[in-house]
Amino acid sequence: MTSVLLKDVQLDGETTHVYVSGNRIEEIGKKREADTVLECKGKVALPGMVNLHTHAAMALFRGFADDVRLQDWLERKIWPQEAKMTPDDVYWGTKLACLEMIKTGTTTFNDMYFHMDHAAKAVKEMGLRGFLAEGFIDLGIASRAKEQFKQVDEVNRKIEGMKLERITPVLGPHAIYTVSEDSWRRFGDLADKKGFMTHTHLSETKREVEECAARYGGRPAAYLEKLGILARSTIVAHGCWLDPSEIELLARSGTKVAHCPVSNLKLAAGQVMPFPALHEAGVVMGLGTDGPASNNSLDMFETMKVAALIQKFAHNDPTVLPAKEAFELASLGGARALGIDAGLVEAGRLADILVVDPKRAELTPRHDDLSNWVYSAHGNVVDTVICDGQVLMKGRRVKGEGEILEKAAAVARDLVTRE
Amino acid sequence: MTSVLLKDVQLDGETTHVYVSGNRIEEIGKKREADTVLECKGKVALPGMVNLHTHAAMALFRGFADDVRLQDWLERKIWPQEAKMTPDDVYWGTKLACLEMIKTGTTTFNDMYFHMDHAAKAVKEMGLRGFLAEGFIDLGIASRAKEQFKQVDEVNRKIEGMKLERITPVLGPHAIYTVSEDSWRRFGDLADKKGFMTHTHLSETKREVEECAARYGGRPAAYLEKLGILARSTIVAHGCWLDPSEIELLARSGTKVAHCPVSNLKLAAGQVMPFPALHEAGVVMGLGTDGPASNNSLDMFETMKVAALIQKFAHNDPTVLPAKEAFELASLGGARALGIDAGLVEAGRLADILVVDPKRAELTPRHDDLSNWVYSAHGNVVDTVICDGQVLMKGRRVKGEGEILEKAAAVARDLVTRE
Repeated sequence: MTSVLLKDVQLDGETTHVYVSGNRIEEIGKKREADTVLECKGKVALPGMVNLHTHAAMALFRGFADDVRLQDWLERKIWPQEAKMTPDDVYWGTKLACLEMIKTGTTTFNDMYFHMDHAAKAVKEMGLRGFLAEGFIDLGIASRAKEQFKQVDEVNRKIEGMKLERITPVLGPHAIYTVSEDSWRRFGDLADKKGFMTHTHLSETKREVEECAARYGGRPAAYLEKLGILARSTIVAHGCWLDPSEIELLARSGTKVAHCPVSNLKLAAGQVMPFPALHEAGVVMGLGTDGPASNNSLDMFETMKVAALIQKFAHNDPTVLPAKEAFELASLGGARALGIDAGLVEAGRLADILVVDPKRAELTPRHDDLSNWVYSAHGNVVDTVICDGQVLMKGRRVKGEGEILEKAAAVARDLVTRE
Repeated sequence: MTSVLLKDVQLDGETTHVYVSGNRIEEIGKKREADTVLECKGKVALPGMVNLHTHAAMALFRGFADDVRLQDWLERKIWPQEAKMTPDDVYWGTKLACLEMIKTGTTTFNDMYFHMDHAAKAVKEMGLRGFLAEGFIDLGIASRAKEQFKQVDEVNRKIEGMKLERITPVLGPHAIYTVSEDSWRRFGDLADKKGFMTHTHLSETKREVEECAARYGGRPAAYLEKLGILARSTIVAHGCWLDPSEIELLARSGTKVAHCPVSNLKLAAGQVMPFPALHEAGVVMGLGTDGPASNNSLDMFETMKVAALIQKFAHNDPTVLPAKEAFELASLGGARALGIDAGLVEAGRLADILVVDPKRAELTPRHDDLSNWVYSAHGNVVDTVICDGQVLMKGRRVKGEGEILEKAAAVARDLVTRE
């Protein structure tokens, strides 16, 4: 097993040493010998960020369709081009997204897209921890459902076949308005029998809530509850329009929620996830960027800040979602939602660690480091990234960066001009 | 006169050369000889950002008091410490803020604080373009007003005595709730007779609007109109609660508005500046970060994004404030508000220019550069900063950075523990 020592690093205000053996933090405090010694004097160790909801390969569509209505965005711009996407596109799009995530301090992400066996190859190479869901959209067409379940099965087998602890296949029924009732039930069975986690969108727009009420006679969360989807192993993204009865259902079932404030603002979701009520109910939450075509960034430091800002504004109270809670949402919250031992730099946890250099104008003075990470920093403050015990970035250098930028740019240009 | 050539730089999608002579852009297109030649191959020229409302030296209070109500923030935390601030504190706080602004691509800022002759010294050394207002708060006390007008007069004379085109003294009556009617009238006279610009806060909170109505029988903008303050040379910050009648007054008088979205969200101002209505009425607007104690960043790239996000959200329409308009607000809009020939990279304009290296994960692909600058970039994408024809940053290095960080940190620590 390889070992890494973070020497003379600041942790919770004290200077200490963090010793990593294999993919875990083994000990904190003793200056031990290690295969790799990182000199961290004056620098600070933080847990890696967990991006709880994204569509990583959509990095290829960054800036391709902004400032338009959600339906236009999907129907006129994104869906027609997505229909032409190849597995190779997804591979390069995911490589690009992983590069951006490493450079901005994200070590784990919960992803939903297509050709996810190819995304898995990219994640394997880049070294991140990935939860990968093959997106499923049947639009009520039985033949399409059949074909897609076959695809889901194949992709998940391939990902499982990689036998990498840090890459986990997840079920990805897209949303209540794109997946038929029959398919939802089958997803529920799959989750129960095979132990898969489930990742879906829920209560993003008012239209979704109204259509659900008209079609199924209840609100979105109640509909999923009836279908047996709400569970400890389910993560729902957005939750902008959740009402108290739905929050109660999520809390009781142990369902997790990914708050995606930037995307919700950019696409004008009309309402913000009710963080205080979800928090009060004890629902486990994390933060997500959503895909880089509706954000258009994968920087979780930015998302922490926007979450804290918009929660204060929406609830007309500047004490809502203080810096400490926002930081926890982005790290420990996401880790808890995904059921991994990450999100804190402490002995026994997975070695998903950032090293930040605080000698920067925007991080000066240091009255309150947590405030600085949330309100003043962007992801570029991250100097070094360790994920699963491996050093993925050191001194802001990531292996293969130049090639990824060139290939991804070429693939993206080709994709959007493809006939 | 010194000259600078930006060689092989991308401008509006074409590769060209930008020739700066003295403090102006003299010519675009020809590869001329120059005292300083900046190799810009593959890099992009952008106008410098204009921060239309801040309190720069409050960088010393970054992270000192977050997640609290505005009144508590002011009365319990900020005001007691501000009372102990020395001119030297303001000097170092402004140096720190200037450093952060340079590092994030701001070349001009509109500032309001205390001991502004010392701020001016910092701005002179750092090379930025500064509009500096000595903040005036009399709280209705005549003796205090008298003393402060004396201070305003002294500070403005000192700043004018520097005879630097890029540093301009401005009048800074704080707000309608902190300045007496008599003092407002005197500020109106000063502006008329001596040609000063005026910088104030207006319509930030609902409480301000309600108290104004109760005390003066009208809304804040109507009150300032009556006192003769609304004018082409006046910049008001915030404007969250402006109603249609006030927008009409601002438009008619030519008053400018600084939108400060991050601070308004963080302090839960309750409502967002009505950008669409102000735009429709033809009001000149720019963007401000507000002070780094209520943001807590001076990064105008972040502010552009948050402005675009919150305007879409507040107006329930993702087409509001598209990338191009957000970028213009942060550059040309601010320049127009301040009456300077900046905000565009074109011949004849002031040489306030950024050079950005787009070969970065978050700026890949380049379907739409403007979208990338607004939605994907942070200020750290800026490689080189030129202000008033002088190179202030090259390859992200700023002269004297280490000393500024050390001194400002020491001053800030001392300030918040001072008895």
